[in-house]
Amino acid sequence: MTNQKPDLYTSLSPALLHLYNLNNAIVVIIDVLRATTTIATALENGAKCVIPVDSVAKCIELGKQIDSITAGERDGKIAEGLQHGNSPFEYPKEFVAGKTLVLTTTNGTRLLHMALDNGAETIITGAFANLDVLCDYLLSQNHNVILGCAAWKNKVNLEDLLFAGAVIHRIKENFSINCDSSQIAETIYLEAKNDLFGFIQEKNASHYHRLKDFGLEKDIRFCLTPNTASVLPFYREGKLIAHKNEATSP
Amino acid sequence: MTNQKPDLYTSLSPALLHLYNLNNAIVVIIDVLRATTTIATALENGAKCVIPVDSVAKCIELGKQIDSITAGERDGKIAEGLQHGNSPFEYPKEFVAGKTLVLTTTNGTRLLHMALDNGAETIITGAFANLDVLCDYLLSQNHNVILGCAAWKNKVNLEDLLFAGAVIHRIKENFSINCDSSQIAETIYLEAKNDLFGFIQEKNASHYHRLKDFGLEKDIRFCLTPNTASVLPFYREGKLIAHKNEATSP
Repeated sequence: MTNQKPDLYTSLSPALLHLYNLNNAIVVIIDVLRATTTIATALENGAKCVIPVDSVAKCIELGKQIDSITAGERDGKIAEGLQHGNSPFEYPKEFVAGKTLVLTTTNGTRLLHMALDNGAETIITGAFANLDVLCDYLLSQNHNVILGCAAWKNKVNLEDLLFAGAVIHRIKENFSINCDSSQIAETIYLEAKNDLFGFIQEKNASHYHRLKDFGLEKDIRFCLTPNTASVLPFYREGKLIAHKNEATSP
Repeated sequence: MTNQKPDLYTSLSPALLHLYNLNNAIVVIIDVLRATTTIATALENGAKCVIPVDSVAKCIELGKQIDSITAGERDGKIAEGLQHGNSPFEYPKEFVAGKTLVLTTTNGTRLLHMALDNGAETIITGAFANLDVLCDYLLSQNHNVILGCAAWKNKVNLEDLLFAGAVIHRIKENFSINCDSSQIAETIYLEAKNDLFGFIQEKNASHYHRLKDFGLEKDIRFCLTPNTASVLPFYREGKLIAHKNEATSP
């Protein structure tokens, strides 16, 4: 009997993405702390779209061209020339509904552009915030999947790996997984799943420390909380646009 | 109190090695299945030195120039033009003592050359075969350490990660480890350590399958067995040369 299941691979760093065949695959951009969490949250709360850009300068430039909220941080503070930060808590419905959010992120945006350059067919973003809706979508497509961790300046990080593991644990029966990185991700997730925050803390995750030093423990806890959003952000012509669960299921 | 411990980082793939500062660091080349295991075994059994080369052609060429054993495999068979394979079992004392082994490996040799190009101060090789002597050495040096996994065509693999984890578990108290990859490696090792072979089998490690299909299960079991050798291979001017435990300890 031949195995007709689609393939699933995990890329632990943008520097490894070129090793995987993105053609004819759904690429999931994962940047748990905090880009893809904030994207899911803003879209959940009714943002018209999120435009991810990789520099503060581009964010300012775009903010001048279109009616939008510009957002981005450097060293834990709102970057000079921008209006808001990267926390998901800054984008409640009352504030963000109907608006365009131009969001500066470095690791996640770079990975997204690399996926585009490498011929990804479909690009979506994932975080614990939209874990179930993402998994439902991947299960419904019968398509190859690449889980792309944004990492931190190309260095593998724990939080993106944990999320990849959470996805794999939920959907693995429907995929052919010949990928040690995916096995590693699921094993770590199973070890951590009863207390993700405690695990990150205990393991001294480098990004946890960067954020904690900026007083962002509350953000971290939220970013590790599953299913606070029911939207799936799709990347189309430079914008991330929400698809509600109903629209993406078969 | 400032932390005066040296740093330890783990690079999970040659494609990530450039992210780490190799100057003033000891770089440990890890290619558990099977290059660094065979290197430790051949040197343990008295080989004069091991010359790692990255292609069959170079191996043949060097074999013509110097009195040596040439070794390398392609698809599980001795490569055309070479005399021997990559199994540690091919290099017992009776055969290899006093001889020069020119060994073709792809992943391990590429990583080694990258470490050289990136200014590594000291390059040694590690495998379960020489786990204790390696750890003793690293503990004795009070120097920054980079554990460099050879991986498989740049894709992260389980066996090299497991070995990095084994090393970290033994020496972590003496190092400052601000590195998620190292945390991941140790966590996976602790999960697997009671039955490394069973873990590799269960997790469907891609390299395990490649080797098993070539009938090399015995090799895999040996490669996961700790402390079958007491030598530490140092790279000096193109050659890996054994230092016995006594010589390297403080």
